[in-house]
Amino acid sequence: MQNLKMIVRYDGTDFHGWQTQPGYRTVQETVESAISSITTEPRVRVNCSGRTDAGVHAYGQVVNVYTATRLPLETLLKAINAKLPGDVAVLQIAVAAQSFDANKDAICKRYRYQIDDSRIPDPFLRRYAYQPKRNIDHDAMHRAAQALVGRHDFRSFETEWPNRLTSIRTIQDIAVTRQGNVVGIEVQADGFLYNMVRSISGTLYQIGRGYWPVEQMQVILDAQDRRVAGPTLPPQGLAMLWVKYADTADQ
Amino acid sequence: MQNLKMIVRYDGTDFHGWQTQPGYRTVQETVESAISSITTEPRVRVNCSGRTDAGVHAYGQVVNVYTATRLPLETLLKAINAKLPGDVAVLQIAVAAQSFDANKDAICKRYRYQIDDSRIPDPFLRRYAYQPKRNIDHDAMHRAAQALVGRHDFRSFETEWPNRLTSIRTIQDIAVTRQGNVVGIEVQADGFLYNMVRSISGTLYQIGRGYWPVEQMQVILDAQDRRVAGPTLPPQGLAMLWVKYADTADQ
Repeated sequence: MQNLKMIVRYDGTDFHGWQTQPGYRTVQETVESAISSITTEPRVRVNCSGRTDAGVHAYGQVVNVYTATRLPLETLLKAINAKLPGDVAVLQIAVAAQSFDANKDAICKRYRYQIDDSRIPDPFLRRYAYQPKRNIDHDAMHRAAQALVGRHDFRSFETEWPNRLTSIRTIQDIAVTRQGNVVGIEVQADGFLYNMVRSISGTLYQIGRGYWPVEQMQVILDAQDRRVAGPTLPPQGLAMLWVKYADTADQ
Repeated sequence: MQNLKMIVRYDGTDFHGWQTQPGYRTVQETVESAISSITTEPRVRVNCSGRTDAGVHAYGQVVNVYTATRLPLETLLKAINAKLPGDVAVLQIAVAAQSFDANKDAICKRYRYQIDDSRIPDPFLRRYAYQPKRNIDHDAMHRAAQALVGRHDFRSFETEWPNRLTSIRTIQDIAVTRQGNVVGIEVQADGFLYNMVRSISGTLYQIGRGYWPVEQMQVILDAQDRRVAGPTLPPQGLAMLWVKYADTADQ
């Protein structure tokens, strides 16, 4: 068996998230079926770096899959993509170490949350951004966000609190930038808690619209209480950008 | 009655084109219903600068509509957008001259056709670009396109040929540019024949993929015969960018 590492991109709009659920169209089931139909293996199991919720997108989700296929990687790549529907694609396939685990071996990931803050929401962004019809101050949001950089207990930004292990993570970089009416919140960390980016974004949104001052972010982080943070913003604004592993230069 | 000029943006994917057709979801019917429900006028008729086919998008479609409403324009704009679904929006409303006709008074329009030429089509572009899974030479396409600039009989690029009036138009500018895997073909003219941008794009595509030499464009233009030009590319790659009128500085 080879252990293959694949980079997967998908528009999450019409998927019920990553994880297979009977009766729903999911990315996992769609990718596994495509691979299985090419390798003619009855059971193919794709292990991803991080499951995404319904409506969430990925530019560079990473997975690993064990397969006995002898097809050259280029042939396999072309054949799998020919089987996949238009809203999901495998961008790259490489042979990984037998021990490579796309989830456990990830050392760093970057997500982006988009807010279209124009008073009249752009029809072309409705699937890819939160559209509150309200102007927000992205400079204030960027300043507030810097309180989160570093190693902290992020339980204030975790939906399922308390979790079983630990809610300590390290945010390496967080940047809020604007291009026209689109405010992008990019968060890079060694790992993420459930709904972490969406609840950080909701908290930054409250600051951006002037409901809370910039200093409130530190107060919320210190409180270690989900109830004091902002709302979990809707899924369509979120996208996984990339995942980094210790042994790869390309990602 | 006031004659209002509106700028309308829509993602054409889930519409059966602009023009009202019983039993289909169209942009015209959707916009007219929204206006009608706000102005409480039983019949509202929206006249557009140019009808778009099913799947074609618009960033700045222009329409005019006669209405007896006394609502301030800002209120009207907000109320109409509150009634519209997420894939269509009215960006601006202004009072126009009583005689203003969004179709007849247009002096210049610009369209864009997009081709994603990567071997693995991008899932985020499937609704907004033609995806032939084949690399094309955008420089050759740009050079070939310049043969079309000026006043010519464009019947080689008209689906319904011969038309009843004239197929002479003036192309003011045509530019083929690339950003990453996306090749954009922008065509600006005083008017367009039916499927003109899509058949020009199909001809340029044949040149871009090396099926015809750059010089073939002049031969095809001169032939005045639709059968010698390239295919009409699919609708999802096309978008109306803007429309210009003699008396407006903003458009």
